[in-house]
Amino acid sequence: MKMIDDIAKRTGTWLSGTGPMNDIVISSRIRLARNLAGFPFLTKSDTGQRNEIYRLLYDRVMHTDLGCRILFVDIEEAPELDRQVLVERHLISRQHAEGEGSRGVAVSDKETLALMVNEEDHLRIQVLGSGFRLEQLWERIDKLDDILQQQLDFAFHEQYGFLTACPTNVGTGIRVSVMLHLPALKLAGELEKVSRAAKNMRLAVRGLHGEGTEATGDFYQISNQTTLGKSEKDIIAEFCSIVIPKIVDYERMARQALLKDRPTALDDKIWRAYGTLENARTLSTEETLYLLSHLRMGIHLGRLETIPLQTINDLFIKAQPAHLQKIRGMRLDGEERSVFRADYIRQRLAESN
Amino acid sequence: MKMIDDIAKRTGTWLSGTGPMNDIVISSRIRLARNLAGFPFLTKSDTGQRNEIYRLLYDRVMHTDLGCRILFVDIEEAPELDRQVLVERHLISRQHAEGEGSRGVAVSDKETLALMVNEEDHLRIQVLGSGFRLEQLWERIDKLDDILQQQLDFAFHEQYGFLTACPTNVGTGIRVSVMLHLPALKLAGELEKVSRAAKNMRLAVRGLHGEGTEATGDFYQISNQTTLGKSEKDIIAEFCSIVIPKIVDYERMARQALLKDRPTALDDKIWRAYGTLENARTLSTEETLYLLSHLRMGIHLGRLETIPLQTINDLFIKAQPAHLQKIRGMRLDGEERSVFRADYIRQRLAESN
Repeated sequence: MKMIDDIAKRTGTWLSGTGPMNDIVISSRIRLARNLAGFPFLTKSDTGQRNEIYRLLYDRVMHTDLGCRILFVDIEEAPELDRQVLVERHLISRQHAEGEGSRGVAVSDKETLALMVNEEDHLRIQVLGSGFRLEQLWERIDKLDDILQQQLDFAFHEQYGFLTACPTNVGTGIRVSVMLHLPALKLAGELEKVSRAAKNMRLAVRGLHGEGTEATGDFYQISNQTTLGKSEKDIIAEFCSIVIPKIVDYERMARQALLKDRPTALDDKIWRAYGTLENARTLSTEETLYLLSHLRMGIHLGRLETIPLQTINDLFIKAQPAHLQKIRGMRLDGEERSVFRADYIRQRLAESN
Repeated sequence: MKMIDDIAKRTGTWLSGTGPMNDIVISSRIRLARNLAGFPFLTKSDTGQRNEIYRLLYDRVMHTDLGCRILFVDIEEAPELDRQVLVERHLISRQHAEGEGSRGVAVSDKETLALMVNEEDHLRIQVLGSGFRLEQLWERIDKLDDILQQQLDFAFHEQYGFLTACPTNVGTGIRVSVMLHLPALKLAGELEKVSRAAKNMRLAVRGLHGEGTEATGDFYQISNQTTLGKSEKDIIAEFCSIVIPKIVDYERMARQALLKDRPTALDDKIWRAYGTLENARTLSTEETLYLLSHLRMGIHLGRLETIPLQTINDLFIKAQPAHLQKIRGMRLDGEERSVFRADYIRQRLAESN
């Protein structure tokens, strides 16, 4: 699809690596789970009901002014590679890409808003932003939710709040998550501590692609696990004033400690990563993310001044399998991808130097 | 010692990486073990006898025309770092460096001849050359042996031949050894076969620094194990017409197979090695030898054309611990050496590019 080809070639606003605390916070995200009153949850819907929900939501979403230009992708009809591009950009979930039946996603042209239709819930509203900006995102999604509620009748229970397909989302239906880059805590072997503290606060710590994925490239997603019994504002306030500033402080201290106590080991790590990316002839996604991760830290610590941060942020996205195939303009098997990935990165680094 | 400082700064003739089959054969070496008649072996000598042997041999060696300029190093008096430099250049053995009592070595100015006094035997005559040139070395050492026999009375038994401190050397007292660079056989996992075949021919396969050392940087020393019951010429003929050409053929085939079947994997290995050497901030001796080993293969296969082979050959020697300290002009502990090694290599590669 031409539209997805274009998306795959740009960095995307929320991937730009800018915004508050961008040395450590890659991006912020809030999503709300909503279901239509008068329709069964998707697990209980037949094909006819599912199609009806899809048509209704498509219609209302596309004919409501959400304050930005919206592109709608029919996920059921979309080629696998296009779906994979959307997953790699965090605009849809893996389950949504791999699911069955009528389903889709509405994406704003800046990719800071995505509305998944017929994922686990009838509608999932998601806003994304670069850096640490949960309060701003909350304002936006709260407004969007209000606008949509004028067009749609969401299933709501006086006592429980918004009703959702999975009980963990009942109540506010909110999930707040922040993607962090924690290479120094990883090097210092102190991630376990952070992870334990987060779990004690009933927060989930996950990898780059959310639930069930490993932390690749030292990226960690921190998100709330419960949505019942706390207001949206309380959940966000906790993230903004306690959780994230604390982890960011830990990571900054770990980076300063590396700089002070082990500058050679730090530079060695950064420059070896650079040397490998600049010279390798085949690179896996995972190795690439780790190497880029070290460069990213190097740039933020002022140890690597020859490459623009923007190039690194862009490569984080472009080095992923579906993006690479879009750039190359053809399907590539695993081995071909690794070779093209190495070629592409070598070329980009040479250009930026 | 000024003399050793000078030695440490040059590459040395036999280390030049030239000569026949130099894509695979680093160097050839022949040594003869000799003892003086009328003196006990060193294991049975007291200090007085040991000193007497030392003085006698020093005197004769220094006053005999061996056809080249000779430098004599009193190993007992030499600082540890100087002894270590001589070990790293294969001019003396580790035992000789670490031993006790009066002992020394006479080295020709081109480092292609070394006479160890009071190592395991009273005298060990050693000739070295770059590439595969055993026949030429045999001519030279045979002549030297004749010249020395006119000056010295060597212990010789009608039936057994030359008598030596260790029974494995009795007879001809000859050890023929060839240093091979076998990275492709290593990558192809076929070294075990070569090693087994060599053992069946009663040859020893050892690492870079001879007996009891591991094969670092894909370097292997092949040498004869027995010296009794075969003439010197037979031993050398076997090396020249069977053993070495066969292993060289194997390695060349393995390299061609890599080029044909796995060119990307090959280039990946070579270029990653280059990227690491060009960027690392700390490098151990062992890692350095492996990385240089890959560059050496890359140059010989025409995959890496920016660096002169001479630089790589020189770095093989200079990257060693004692050489580095000589270049730096001061003692360095292990960590300091690794940092200086990385700095030095980075600078050399930048200069050669």
